[in-house]
Amino acid sequence: MSHVRVAGSGLTAFGNTPERTSRDLFAEATVEAFEDSGVPRADVDAVFYGNFMGELSEHQGHQGPLMAEAAGVQAPATRYESACASSGTAVRDAVVRLRNGEADVVLVGGAERMTNLGTAGATEALAIAADDLWEVRAGTTFPGAYALMAQAYFDRFGGKREDLAHVAVKNHDNALSNEKAQYQSAIEVDDVLEAPTVSTPLGLYDSCPLSDGAAALVLTSESYAEEHDLEAPISITGTGQGGDRMALHDRDHLARSPAAREAGKEAYADAGIDADDIDLAEVHDCFTIAEVLALEALDLEQAGEGISAARDGRTTADGETPVNLSGGLKAKGHPVGATGASQIAEVTKLLAGDHPNSAHVPDATTGVAHNAGGTVASATVHVLEEVSDR
Amino acid sequence: MSHVRVAGSGLTAFGNTPERTSRDLFAEATVEAFEDSGVPRADVDAVFYGNFMGELSEHQGHQGPLMAEAAGVQAPATRYESACASSGTAVRDAVVRLRNGEADVVLVGGAERMTNLGTAGATEALAIAADDLWEVRAGTTFPGAYALMAQAYFDRFGGKREDLAHVAVKNHDNALSNEKAQYQSAIEVDDVLEAPTVSTPLGLYDSCPLSDGAAALVLTSESYAEEHDLEAPISITGTGQGGDRMALHDRDHLARSPAAREAGKEAYADAGIDADDIDLAEVHDCFTIAEVLALEALDLEQAGEGISAARDGRTTADGETPVNLSGGLKAKGHPVGATGASQIAEVTKLLAGDHPNSAHVPDATTGVAHNAGGTVASATVHVLEEVSDR
Repeated sequence: MSHVRVAGSGLTAFGNTPERTSRDLFAEATVEAFEDSGVPRADVDAVFYGNFMGELSEHQGHQGPLMAEAAGVQAPATRYESACASSGTAVRDAVVRLRNGEADVVLVGGAERMTNLGTAGATEALAIAADDLWEVRAGTTFPGAYALMAQAYFDRFGGKREDLAHVAVKNHDNALSNEKAQYQSAIEVDDVLEAPTVSTPLGLYDSCPLSDGAAALVLTSESYAEEHDLEAPISITGTGQGGDRMALHDRDHLARSPAAREAGKEAYADAGIDADDIDLAEVHDCFTIAEVLALEALDLEQAGEGISAARDGRTTADGETPVNLSGGLKAKGHPVGATGASQIAEVTKLLAGDHPNSAHVPDATTGVAHNAGGTVASATVHVLEEVSDR
Repeated sequence: MSHVRVAGSGLTAFGNTPERTSRDLFAEATVEAFEDSGVPRADVDAVFYGNFMGELSEHQGHQGPLMAEAAGVQAPATRYESACASSGTAVRDAVVRLRNGEADVVLVGGAERMTNLGTAGATEALAIAADDLWEVRAGTTFPGAYALMAQAYFDRFGGKREDLAHVAVKNHDNALSNEKAQYQSAIEVDDVLEAPTVSTPLGLYDSCPLSDGAAALVLTSESYAEEHDLEAPISITGTGQGGDRMALHDRDHLARSPAAREAGKEAYADAGIDADDIDLAEVHDCFTIAEVLALEALDLEQAGEGISAARDGRTTADGETPVNLSGGLKAKGHPVGATGASQIAEVTKLLAGDHPNSAHVPDATTGVAHNAGGTVASATVHVLEEVSDR
């Protein structure tokens, strides 16, 4: 089984562009991805596209063929929806297709238009990622659900709001050099602590923003990359996916994410690596607590220790294992359907030395991308490695 | 590359059950599928689930993990959305996963709750499968779009409403013995011709109904089936997918379905068969004209001849190549997300001799299932064969 090469990637700026359709956003991302790859559109065998809430924000389902068209590609196209892990699952199926010789070139990506719904509308739309019968009708929103998870973490392992604040500060710092990030502004711990409370213990700066944006990847088989002499130094060497019960009340403990743990274990085994081999990670920090839970699920931190990782500098840009050098969902933004694919794009650039923050990780050869849906009822993990290093 | 076995299948009755949630419907289908398969739920490696309009009908996205839970399965789960081809694309990715050794056992299926929206609400929800900007806002609905396709067919190849009426009559006849069909009632050509017009030239009986229902399949690798000595005599030996522009105005001709043609060609080549080898077919007859277009796209009829296939008896139960022995979408019903998987279930039973209509096809060894999304901007085709025959 061969590995899959990342031949090119493209991202729109993430932010507030309520007037732009998701097809417009995705088209822009694909132009950049094809240019970056040097692969002709005519060689694309299939399109894997992630989108979460197009039915609600644009009255548009069946976005697979629509996005193939927007990308100027004539190929079968499928839309994947796993809430905020939508394009993570799209990447996973693309990897399986390519590494087994069932395709040579695929276009993978995702897009989301959200801000046109307004804050209340988008919050209500996002809630469809939770269990409508048992959670949403009882008033659950995602800030509320993650607040429960944060409180459960504090109760079990200790920690406080200030620890979480360091996650937000770190990710804002990382985004300063990312010209496509939604927020390119430094913040201080006090800013986070003094921000309005969203749902105790989480405040406004513990939460990722609502964002519009798109991400696209041109992935190829190893043999295609070699035959065409592509400049594609990074491979996806491992893929994993985990699942959990939807509703929080069915979980063994709110401060554990078994779906992410399962996805990570599978991806690491697939790539033949251990957590110790990981030089950097992009994780799904929709809220500051989510980054903490992800670090522990991925064995980058021991249970109960993830809370101090940002505060003590282990996950900062010059720390042992930098996390969310892109700025993460928190500062880069979180156009839901685009996020999973955008993480792969960021890890690829970081490892290839093409990222503004690559200077912080000059020797990095192995990175992971972790994408989560809902309160982590779905999770995907991908391992990326430098080709020369394998 | 090994073939994929259909170890078990389960269907709810299709019909009007507006009070039942899609998780309730899917749970019922999976109970039957697991019983039929003899495979323990604990052996399931992944869940592939098709759903089209859950966001609009149940305020519920992220249905993958929800449906794994409803099925009593702990495994990663992904939701596929390709409009009316949603579970066709789910089956396709499941087949790719299994035949390459990336999984041993998977649960595949789909469900749709539609009738709770009422006729106008469901029609508006279905419209999200068309291009919202260029078609829906201009007033296009699916009966209108297929009426344009029918008119284009008549203009190019000849034919009349009475020819189409024979498709409806045939499919109602076939459904008489299908206890889970939405309509188990014989109709006459005059009934079709005298029914209220929906969109000229299509009338009420040219159209499939709105339906609630679910379908589930337990698929396994060949090696798993053999090791566990499963009663699983039917294999999925070919898979194909095609794509086309979303909007009708971008098509070369409204009476051609290149996405279905592409999917069929790929599936036949994959299985190593020709159209001549096909003994029976389940095709996506959301409207009577859709069956005609499908027959021609799948090379079961030459261009311009599909219109006479039902009228002249070539596709009737005792014809040369029976089509939609289940009753098709027209009479069995069309709970959108369930349809693609339900077609695989029907073909499996027909070939295995376990179907009420198997007596019409005692020597059949090869069948195909054709699932289409929108105005065939998406299509999947699967080839199924008796194991002993390969």
